[in-house]
Amino acid sequence: MSLEHVLNAASVAVVGASKNETKRGYQTIRTLLSEKYEGDIYPVNPKERTILGLKCHKKVSDIGAPVELALIATPAKTVPAVLEDCGTKGVQGAVILAGGFGETGQQGKQLEDQIVSVAQKHGIRLIGPNTSGMINPPMRMNLVGIRDVPAGGIALLSQSGNMALTLITEARLKSRSGFSYYVGVGNEADIKFHEYLEFFRKDPKTKAILMYVEGMRMGREFLQQAYKTTIEKPIVLLKSGRSATGRKSAGSHTGALAGISQVAKGAFKRAGIVVIDNSDQLYPAAEALSSLPQITNNCVAVLADGGGHATIAADVLTDLGLRIPELDEKTQDRLRGILPAAASVVNPVDVAGGTDDNPSVFADCARILLKDKHVGGLLIVGLFGGYGIRFAESLALMEEDAAHQMGKMVRQHNKPIIVHSLYSSEKPHSLDLLRYYGVPVTDSLDVACKCIGVLAEYGNYLRSYHARVHFVFDWGAKATDTGKSLIRDAKAEGRQALLEYEAKELLASHGAPVSGDRLAATAEEASEMSKEIAGPVALKLASPDILHKSDAGGVKLKLCTPTDVKTAFQEIVSNGKKYKADADIRGCIVSPMARPGLEVIIGTKVDDQFGPVIMYGLGGVMVEILRDVTFRVLPISRNSANKLIEETKSAPILSGVRGRIAL
Amino acid sequence: MSLEHVLNAASVAVVGASKNETKRGYQTIRTLLSEKYEGDIYPVNPKERTILGLKCHKKVSDIGAPVELALIATPAKTVPAVLEDCGTKGVQGAVILAGGFGETGQQGKQLEDQIVSVAQKHGIRLIGPNTSGMINPPMRMNLVGIRDVPAGGIALLSQSGNMALTLITEARLKSRSGFSYYVGVGNEADIKFHEYLEFFRKDPKTKAILMYVEGMRMGREFLQQAYKTTIEKPIVLLKSGRSATGRKSAGSHTGALAGISQVAKGAFKRAGIVVIDNSDQLYPAAEALSSLPQITNNCVAVLADGGGHATIAADVLTDLGLRIPELDEKTQDRLRGILPAAASVVNPVDVAGGTDDNPSVFADCARILLKDKHVGGLLIVGLFGGYGIRFAESLALMEEDAAHQMGKMVRQHNKPIIVHSLYSSEKPHSLDLLRYYGVPVTDSLDVACKCIGVLAEYGNYLRSYHARVHFVFDWGAKATDTGKSLIRDAKAEGRQALLEYEAKELLASHGAPVSGDRLAATAEEASEMSKEIAGPVALKLASPDILHKSDAGGVKLKLCTPTDVKTAFQEIVSNGKKYKADADIRGCIVSPMARPGLEVIIGTKVDDQFGPVIMYGLGGVMVEILRDVTFRVLPISRNSANKLIEETKSAPILSGVRGRIAL
Repeated sequence: MSLEHVLNAASVAVVGASKNETKRGYQTIRTLLSEKYEGDIYPVNPKERTILGLKCHKKVSDIGAPVELALIATPAKTVPAVLEDCGTKGVQGAVILAGGFGETGQQGKQLEDQIVSVAQKHGIRLIGPNTSGMINPPMRMNLVGIRDVPAGGIALLSQSGNMALTLITEARLKSRSGFSYYVGVGNEADIKFHEYLEFFRKDPKTKAILMYVEGMRMGREFLQQAYKTTIEKPIVLLKSGRSATGRKSAGSHTGALAGISQVAKGAFKRAGIVVIDNSDQLYPAAEALSSLPQITNNCVAVLADGGGHATIAADVLTDLGLRIPELDEKTQDRLRGILPAAASVVNPVDVAGGTDDNPSVFADCARILLKDKHVGGLLIVGLFGGYGIRFAESLALMEEDAAHQMGKMVRQHNKPIIVHSLYSSEKPHSLDLLRYYGVPVTDSLDVACKCIGVLAEYGNYLRSYHARVHFVFDWGAKATDTGKSLIRDAKAEGRQALLEYEAKELLASHGAPVSGDRLAATAEEASEMSKEIAGPVALKLASPDILHKSDAGGVKLKLCTPTDVKTAFQEIVSNGKKYKADADIRGCIVSPMARPGLEVIIGTKVDDQFGPVIMYGLGGVMVEILRDVTFRVLPISRNSANKLIEETKSAPILSGVRGRIAL
Repeated sequence: MSLEHVLNAASVAVVGASKNETKRGYQTIRTLLSEKYEGDIYPVNPKERTILGLKCHKKVSDIGAPVELALIATPAKTVPAVLEDCGTKGVQGAVILAGGFGETGQQGKQLEDQIVSVAQKHGIRLIGPNTSGMINPPMRMNLVGIRDVPAGGIALLSQSGNMALTLITEARLKSRSGFSYYVGVGNEADIKFHEYLEFFRKDPKTKAILMYVEGMRMGREFLQQAYKTTIEKPIVLLKSGRSATGRKSAGSHTGALAGISQVAKGAFKRAGIVVIDNSDQLYPAAEALSSLPQITNNCVAVLADGGGHATIAADVLTDLGLRIPELDEKTQDRLRGILPAAASVVNPVDVAGGTDDNPSVFADCARILLKDKHVGGLLIVGLFGGYGIRFAESLALMEEDAAHQMGKMVRQHNKPIIVHSLYSSEKPHSLDLLRYYGVPVTDSLDVACKCIGVLAEYGNYLRSYHARVHFVFDWGAKATDTGKSLIRDAKAEGRQALLEYEAKELLASHGAPVSGDRLAATAEEASEMSKEIAGPVALKLASPDILHKSDAGGVKLKLCTPTDVKTAFQEIVSNGKKYKADADIRGCIVSPMARPGLEVIIGTKVDDQFGPVIMYGLGGVMVEILRDVTFRVLPISRNSANKLIEETKSAPILSGVRGRIAL
């Protein structure tokens, strides 16, 4: 069912309406009234006649007009009955504020299941529970009570009410942009992240989607929807909780290294989501993406009125992967024409005092730079906006002129401008003008660089393979009979893992090339098997109780003679018993020695949030030390598998380095 | 000569004084007068009688009273004569603003050498040239013209006038702290970074030193002085220009990988300097270090009024290497006593609404947390300061009470508090109070975490080996006769590099263990030599023209028989000729095969800024791919060498991983 009547509700019942000023049931109605919500408001409280001048109803079903949305501000245990009542009334959505559901444990989880089942019975869609609420600023439907939420093109999804408050406060104090929606997703009991995403994708008011995520229930469905969304509008996301990562170590390499965040980050990026690591940069990145064209060639020009800012910006932009290309000869000539001789007309451009007595020269430089075909976007750093403060008041008017010109230039050239001004927090009018044209202004060089960076990142994505291919997240190949029986047998023995030779059999049954391993139960058997193999052999301990064989001294390599094989077998078995006295030792695997090469690791696991994922990295002892591994959500295409490999630092080794043959 | 009369000058002559309002010679005098400089001001201009009411002198030597400092605002070419005149007057220091010296090329460099020699003749110390000037805020001696520079405990050294303006503006708008000095070091023609540092180390007004550096002339002397300084007061530094790094590639591994910034960063950190990567964090870090005690156990508590901020802070602090330890049982009990049941009393502490109707509970929580012996410092994140804005005005008074209490707590417990408030830019009075007590407040979670981070980093340094040992940067071991003759011979042949066997001989002459290599000129010689070696041998091309032997197919390993050796010799020589037709091929080096082990690289170079440096890292193909290398300025102690190795990601491999023997 569409979320239209939930997120754009034309009428709201406030269940738990109150005359007590400290209660949400009072504050919400006061806010809806004071902000002039364009729909109808129905207080619901069996004990009151009127609240804030509005008629109070005993229950939702008593309201004599259609009700699209109910804000339920009553305690957790009352919610099932309230929802039943909402159902009889035909309410289409409910925002459930109360905590005390799934987040508190088993009992809460049962209550949560109960409200979901009541809601489903009646076709009610639920936001929350355990949420700060929902705001629709263009309709002035504010069910949270945060004051002065600016309306604009950014849809905000947050799993933290305080982070939402932070982002909204930042928008209010430091930008002229704002929000199409805010939804506190809470426990995702009913409506999940991907459903909000689908709604925002189709919503014409929403230009960009901003997300603060701690974890999600249906990561695969989210990714599928994100793919569809990012080719139409940008998603900016911060995922927190990475420090918990790694604590939940699992038995296998993949488990130990995966860490939910690492999987999530890779998956999000591949879906074209702009992932932000730094909470300072979250809102500005969304602001830039919601109001400016993206950069289509990963190249930017930097325009500075001082060397220090230009140098730092060049460092940061380079770290972000952007190019700061040489400018056209023509561009350089034109800049020389309007700047003093000491100016640097390469990129970064340093005006060297050329704007001191007339800061509108910034606009002339900007126009020249944006005309250069090598320049995809422009970053202005330094004092702009502050000439009137620092030097002479009259200069402020020239800055305002330049701001008007530069603001219009963005649309004329369809290239973005971002402005860093160390005077931003003094709020000169010229900087407000820039914001009016959708040009973000910040007093942080790092944030300004990041804004340019995300415009390039998103532009790069839109030109990439991923944005041009339609991915479907099915669950991959079907099980083979061989695989089923291997796993059935292992389970029958109470095992959680396959033995090495079983694993190879499973892989072979799906078409993967594997070495011809065999299990020898005795030293003699091993010795006989080795005779059938050309060249030296390897012997490896086969025990369901010993996962890491080399830790147990359970691997012997390059055994050349049957006698060596026998001796090695006995040593391995004896080492295994020493390592774990009660281990179930089934013998040794006999395999031909692999040719010299590079050891890599490929692992898979079923991630809690994203389902089957694959890990690739340098193998052997390196995997744990250097952690040079990357992840993808399965299935992956051949092209994507190649990208996966290319992402590792060690990838060049595969292409052959320093006289080593490419592998 | 001490810089006392330069940086704390009791009288200033302004050479190039002017009546033109756009000139520095006018602006400086106006500023000195309006800010009430506590010394004497002497305008110097042969054409004027008075300027701004002050008597004007034709030249410095005409002034009838002592002059300690001259601000020279005249063009570059006039400076030598002005300095001569200053010299006859006995002036002790000069600030030379003009550009057009060493930074412009050879001719400018000559002029720069000339002014230095004039200055030395007369015992005048020079700041600059090519500088924005100098400010002494406590004396109100402002030779730059930046208005409203707050006085305080931070000495600022900057190679960019605009970065100085940025940092000063930030101090003025976002803190209550300020500066003991600002010096624009300019070209460092005379006074170098290390001399300013020595002065600031001894200056009682200076509590911390803040530096913006693009490059320095005498890095070794700076490091030596930094060692002495950081055990007394903190240095915070941002080094820009890292993106130029790596472009100047050199022939050897070390050269290619070193990149000045990587050497500099390692050297700075080892000297106890707090190196900042992010320009946003530069001033706040200095502010925190100048006003707060350091953290002595690398452990912090986080106090939050919402889950989102706490989670993000935990992530960032963990990334910064800080610990967020469990709290004492007693601490937890005490917190439970004042917070609602839903509160989290582990670390991070989430008050869960416990401060909503009384934010002074923050102070109670802070007191309990600072009493915990596991807690070395406290980070408060969220809404503090904004309760009066967000909820009810009356709460603002409770916040002010809490601010007074928390401000005093810092001194009582000698543990720092840092406050993140999303309402910081609304400037509530409570946050201003915190700043009055020296508690930095910021609206950036990342900056707040970094402030706590640098207090821990500096605390860790003060407890470390480096802070307890007296380092002397001598130039290391003396040359041996063997070494001298090897290098003389190579030079005689016009070579820039030693051959492998020569290098080993050089190392051996200094006591390093090396393999017994010998140079064979012919296949027969090689074959004979191999017979004298027990076990298989390696053959390696010996040519001064081929540096990377394996690229040229010039290495053959594990040769077991004399025949194999002969064949290998011929192949290597033939490969060498194919690789470079005109190569001077001297034969092959014959050496015993090394036992299997891990290949590491140790390189040295003479860095432009820091003199002899050493690089260590994983060797072989890995060195170029993974770049897991670290650097130290030489000489290093055994202890420091161990630390150097421990810094690499690959270090655990040396301690033995997964059944491999520790090497």
